[in-house]
Amino acid sequence: MTVISVIAGDGIGREVVPEAIETLDALGLGLRYDVLDHVNAQSYLRTGAALSDSDLDRVRASDATLLGAVGDPRVTSPDYARGVLLRLRFELDLYVNHRAVTLLHDRLSPLRDEKRRGIDCVIVRENTEGLYAGIGGALRGSSELETALDVEVNTHAGVSRVIAYAFSIARTGVCLVDKSNAVPHGGRLWQRCWAEQCAQWPGIHATHQYVDTAAMRLVADPTAFDVIVANNSHGDILSDLAAQLGGGLGTAASANLNARTGFGLYEPVHGSAPDIAGTGSANPVGAVLSAALMIEHLGHPQEALAVRSAVARSIADRRCTPDLGGTLTTRQAGAAIRAALD
Amino acid sequence: MTVISVIAGDGIGREVVPEAIETLDALGLGLRYDVLDHVNAQSYLRTGAALSDSDLDRVRASDATLLGAVGDPRVTSPDYARGVLLRLRFELDLYVNHRAVTLLHDRLSPLRDEKRRGIDCVIVRENTEGLYAGIGGALRGSSELETALDVEVNTHAGVSRVIAYAFSIARTGVCLVDKSNAVPHGGRLWQRCWAEQCAQWPGIHATHQYVDTAAMRLVADPTAFDVIVANNSHGDILSDLAAQLGGGLGTAASANLNARTGFGLYEPVHGSAPDIAGTGSANPVGAVLSAALMIEHLGHPQEALAVRSAVARSIADRRCTPDLGGTLTTRQAGAAIRAALD
Ligand SMILES: CC(C)[C@H](C(=O)O)[C@@H](O)C(=O)O
Ligand SMILES: CC(C)[C@H](C(=O)O)[C@@H](O)C(=O)O
Repeated sequence: MTVISVIAGDGIGREVVPEAIETLDALGLGLRYDVLDHVNAQSYLRTGAALSDSDLDRVRASDATLLGAVGDPRVTSPDYARGVLLRLRFELDLYVNHRAVTLLHDRLSPLRDEKRRGIDCVIVRENTEGLYAGIGGALRGSSELETALDVEVNTHAGVSRVIAYAFSIARTGVCLVDKSNAVPHGGRLWQRCWAEQCAQWPGIHATHQYVDTAAMRLVADPTAFDVIVANNSHGDILSDLAAQLGGGLGTAASANLNARTGFGLYEPVHGSAPDIAGTGSANPVGAVLSAALMIEHLGHPQEALAVRSAVARSIADRRCTPDLGGTLTTRQAGAAIRAALD
Repeated sequence: MTVISVIAGDGIGREVVPEAIETLDALGLGLRYDVLDHVNAQSYLRTGAALSDSDLDRVRASDATLLGAVGDPRVTSPDYARGVLLRLRFELDLYVNHRAVTLLHDRLSPLRDEKRRGIDCVIVRENTEGLYAGIGGALRGSSELETALDVEVNTHAGVSRVIAYAFSIARTGVCLVDKSNAVPHGGRLWQRCWAEQCAQWPGIHATHQYVDTAAMRLVADPTAFDVIVANNSHGDILSDLAAQLGGGLGTAASANLNARTGFGLYEPVHGSAPDIAGTGSANPVGAVLSAALMIEHLGHPQEALAVRSAVARSIADRRCTPDLGGTLTTRQAGAAIRAALD
């Protein structure tokens, strides 16, 4: 029996995850769910705790995790997101954040040049190191003399394994994105691991861009990219940017993976969107496509394809939320996807 | 007598700076130039030195610096850019990187939606702290066990002064961009300095976005932004992205400023572009507009305006380089700008 641990989280996460689950149910795969309903900002504000050790045990006991979104305007401390989403990524060693972006329909592209609209790339983001490690501190904290330090950590093992993953999924090429001309120590390490991995994958076209240039070129011509591999911070930024080019943040899916154990946490790239939470206008597509990624990794590629086709069809027919040019609510858009399943 | 120190640097820097200088000369301001011609990758490769102490003295003795670009594919070490451009920024304490982006002509926007093309914003990038400090090192360097550390440094004084600058130039509002939900120590400090500065500038609309969201929203609707203030790394990425939305990297100008002493180093946002260096196709607009920013700061606002109008006119008439839809070479495009000066 396959068990999915479910953390809907906050804001629109609580609205889109039910649509993803109903869509999974419509496939008849017999999945079971372990719902961690209390993992959210509300509980954090009440108890000061986010994700407990026993929650983590429940996640570990499951076959995969489906997550909605984590974040709340009432929570200003980084401890909350760090205690839930980043804790899961770190403790389960989900070192790959795989964020695939495909233009779902021509009308969704923000780009003027028709020939450059067809983005179809994967951002492979390092997910367990970098500035997200949370290492550092403050000298003379809270005074006028405060100096705050955050350490960007990169390890040979950590960088090598995520670059290797990027090569392993490449169709035409891998582009390393870094800032090795300015950030010296991690920059040198990434360049070294890159050269080592390039030598291991001689058949795949390997290129390099600085992150500022990459952001610019993604807008200039996203069709020029196949797989991009980047550190945790750069990957965070480039994947939101790519999602916008693929039809808006509401549509992008992601998998947080340990490519060795196969365990994955699947989540839409969008956040909790407090500004639209409760209005019924949240787009369920990112969550539904994340669920599709999940079942693909769990051994159901045909069902994953069926979900993707249903999403594409519902969007082509404008049976979708306003951000995609439709007039449906979250619930109706979810139902439209299910109706389009063959 | 006003003296401009000139560092053309590498690649297309050497092609666009002469156009900027000829344009300045055409204004009859009687500027004198101190040309540091040897500060480039060629010298660095030969001697291992980039910018010497006596070069720095010459820069200090000048009233402002005009720089082309720094970077060469033969130089893989971060020591080069760090030794020239970053050394200048740090030692002259040029804590503001002011990067203004305005859409120069409707046809240059990569965006489909006409109503959202008119970007007109300033990215205020912190320029002397952050990950660019170069602090850190490697444990078990060059082995399979290497751990590389780079420290992102933020100080209360450094963060406060750059936020204050952003408020001081705002027309309608300032948006703080950070990653305070994930990077804890600097995140908390930026949030604290932000709250303190917001209280000092009650008349100005203050908003906050996480950097991933900001990248996305810049593409979704760049007209929603007036001034963005961000740390060194985020500002680097967002300013290239904004430049692309404003008509391409070839057009964006920047000022590296110490807002207290008034000293500035002016440079186009684009790099040395080794792929097109020597082809005569480099766009001189970024360098010319950087020179306009420079004379504006040196007390010649009318002449700066004249240069900007001439640039706009040359682009409207398609008397420009291919990246802007023209057919002219670098030299011809520079001449066209000068011909359009009244
Ligand atoms: C050359 C490089 C170190 C530099 C930077 O990142 O600051 C450049 O990209 C810029 O933006 O001026
Ligand atoms: C909530 C935040 C910490 C998170 C991140 O930056 O990793 C989010 O933006 C994401 O991309 O999944």
